[in-house]
Amino acid sequence: MTASRDYAALAQRGLSLDLTRGKPSPRQLDLSNDMLRLPESYHAADGTDARNYGDLQGLPELRELFGPLLQVPPAQVVVGGNASLALMHDTVVHALLGKVPGAERRWVEEPEITFLCPVPGYDRHFTICERLGITMVAVPMGPDGPDMDVVERLVASDPKVKGMWCVPKYSNPSGVVYSDETVRRLAAMPAAAPDFRIFWDNAYAVHHLTDTPAELADLLALCAAHGNPDRALVYGSTSKVTLAGAGVSFFGSSPANVEWFLANTRKQSIGPDKLNQLRHVEFLRDADGVAAHMRRHAELIAPKFELVDRVLTKELGGLATWTSPRGGYFISLEVPHAAEVVARAKAAGIALTPAGATHPYGEDPDDRVIRIAPTYPELDELEQAILGLTVCVRLVAEERA
Amino acid sequence: MTASRDYAALAQRGLSLDLTRGKPSPRQLDLSNDMLRLPESYHAADGTDARNYGDLQGLPELRELFGPLLQVPPAQVVVGGNASLALMHDTVVHALLGKVPGAERRWVEEPEITFLCPVPGYDRHFTICERLGITMVAVPMGPDGPDMDVVERLVASDPKVKGMWCVPKYSNPSGVVYSDETVRRLAAMPAAAPDFRIFWDNAYAVHHLTDTPAELADLLALCAAHGNPDRALVYGSTSKVTLAGAGVSFFGSSPANVEWFLANTRKQSIGPDKLNQLRHVEFLRDADGVAAHMRRHAELIAPKFELVDRVLTKELGGLATWTSPRGGYFISLEVPHAAEVVARAKAAGIALTPAGATHPYGEDPDDRVIRIAPTYPELDELEQAILGLTVCVRLVAEERA
Repeated sequence: MTASRDYAALAQRGLSLDLTRGKPSPRQLDLSNDMLRLPESYHAADGTDARNYGDLQGLPELRELFGPLLQVPPAQVVVGGNASLALMHDTVVHALLGKVPGAERRWVEEPEITFLCPVPGYDRHFTICERLGITMVAVPMGPDGPDMDVVERLVASDPKVKGMWCVPKYSNPSGVVYSDETVRRLAAMPAAAPDFRIFWDNAYAVHHLTDTPAELADLLALCAAHGNPDRALVYGSTSKVTLAGAGVSFFGSSPANVEWFLANTRKQSIGPDKLNQLRHVEFLRDADGVAAHMRRHAELIAPKFELVDRVLTKELGGLATWTSPRGGYFISLEVPHAAEVVARAKAAGIALTPAGATHPYGEDPDDRVIRIAPTYPELDELEQAILGLTVCVRLVAEERA
Repeated sequence: MTASRDYAALAQRGLSLDLTRGKPSPRQLDLSNDMLRLPESYHAADGTDARNYGDLQGLPELRELFGPLLQVPPAQVVVGGNASLALMHDTVVHALLGKVPGAERRWVEEPEITFLCPVPGYDRHFTICERLGITMVAVPMGPDGPDMDVVERLVASDPKVKGMWCVPKYSNPSGVVYSDETVRRLAAMPAAAPDFRIFWDNAYAVHHLTDTPAELADLLALCAAHGNPDRALVYGSTSKVTLAGAGVSFFGSSPANVEWFLANTRKQSIGPDKLNQLRHVEFLRDADGVAAHMRRHAELIAPKFELVDRVLTKELGGLATWTSPRGGYFISLEVPHAAEVVARAKAAGIALTPAGATHPYGEDPDDRVIRIAPTYPELDELEQAILGLTVCVRLVAEERA
């Protein structure tokens, strides 16, 4: 009965803690406060007055800075607003309402469209599909990425499969890095749909937690090498590099896809906020500047990941499994009766992402995955929250025993 | 033969002048340079850390500042990115892919959709329709706005008519201000389509050129008063208030429409750039601050409008007609054989918006309207360009005589 006593004590404390979203902490945001006084010059490198309209694709100097980090040639990078999610959403919209290169028709004219969703995955990818009427098919993740036997079979056999979501590096929420062989198979596999696309959300490209950064194979180049040049749609952003609400986002792909994307975007906007682009160039400067800045982030958040791991090990050894990612923003905790654990935590004042959110339609068939976002709270709050969570896990285990 | 001699001399000068787009001049942008050092505080009035994610609707203090200027209650304002065009484009997309309040089905499921387009009008409205497969029907503009007899008949009789574009104040390009009676009739008229919407692009709400600002009736309130609360979709931006590429945009409508819009936007983005919102609040402060700032713009650009009027009067009296707007960004010149005039000007190094761009599908049936954008060039360049344009008008008139 230890767990019920601990839970009663926990509930009495009247906590109000939040582990839901992958937000940088205020101290992380402080690292970029100098940006608030930039840009020093409103002229781009080529003399463009960045204050005025225009330059749909984005400033060359920013594309040159982030292209290599996202493994995209700078000429094939498009800079967007503050949310790469909007670039992904809008890509799907453009494909629904205007034919992607290689498509027989607009996706909205297809009787049904299916996207493959490696699980656990990112809930906001899934809500885009739900909102736009795209059927989702879950594919299990393993230590090297999605189960490629399943992926290859579905993509090769079913022309309804038009897309696949991937967070290939430090995956949300499991922290998995796709292996070279996984990336090669994604690039090389035959597809029944001529307009099949991989949405490669490289959200954590430079977000390392250790001194041995994970290396990711170059999907865009591999797709071209395997005769599928238009398959890869690459996304990234500085939301978790500089300022979460005021970053810049990136889209990169083949020349044909970029031309198609810009042709659609040209109807939507007269151009992006180039002053914010300059602000980023002046602040981050170059790849070394980005790496140094990301090390400062890691110094702030790596101890949080270590704390979670330590508390889970101490309190839940044998009762649960969890990930120890080498980068990214999340820890994936797997426990029996996850929904009940989350409900118990909520009742005790600890907010967690709803169990199931890591799966299409919010349905985790095994009811096991809980996504922990440790970056936002300070260490003492985080420790309280994770300790409280372990009490809930133990309580549910005890009650269900 | 005066005109041919003048044209030969003009062509020999090798000019390279641009009257195409309504861009603020560098000196206008200089008026907002202090924004490059703002915001001083990254905390919103309610304490929100504006650097982080969230607040999809936008900061209350900015909605309170611009709501009244756009005649929208602040609670019904949504703040967007740097382009109100994107808000309009995305509204149409959301209506195509997700039912607007009152609709029987998603617009994409309708066999055909029609938008009314007062002409001359704004080419970028028309390209949204073209790109998204919406049929455009031109409606003639008069001195009080669109011909309301035509509008009322079409809207009342044809359920395919789902939308209408309006630039109600200092209209692009004719400078017309919709009269109170026009606005009342737009609000009150019966519509065959239950989901008929007026896209009210109030782009020049505060962009006066004189000391007697035009007053515009309150469409949103009138729609509600006449039992059509969800008819009006209001748009505006600071693109031509602060910095053209780094402004903020606004959407305002009925509570039901705003809820619908936010429900769709929530799938697209985690929130807008709130630092840029704070930057605007700190810089413009209040309605008086906006008015004072816009007077400084007028001091810079009113002389340009006067110059164009003076040159046209001197050179083209009797050969052409043109507008003398009291605000906004354009002068509408009407001449016979407009396309030929534009081609002649281009050959002489003077770039003008293509003749016909002011009409759906780029087709001006009378081949008469040329849109002049006088704000960007400095006075001496503008004088050369307009003088050159008048030479082209006289040349074509002479050749066609």
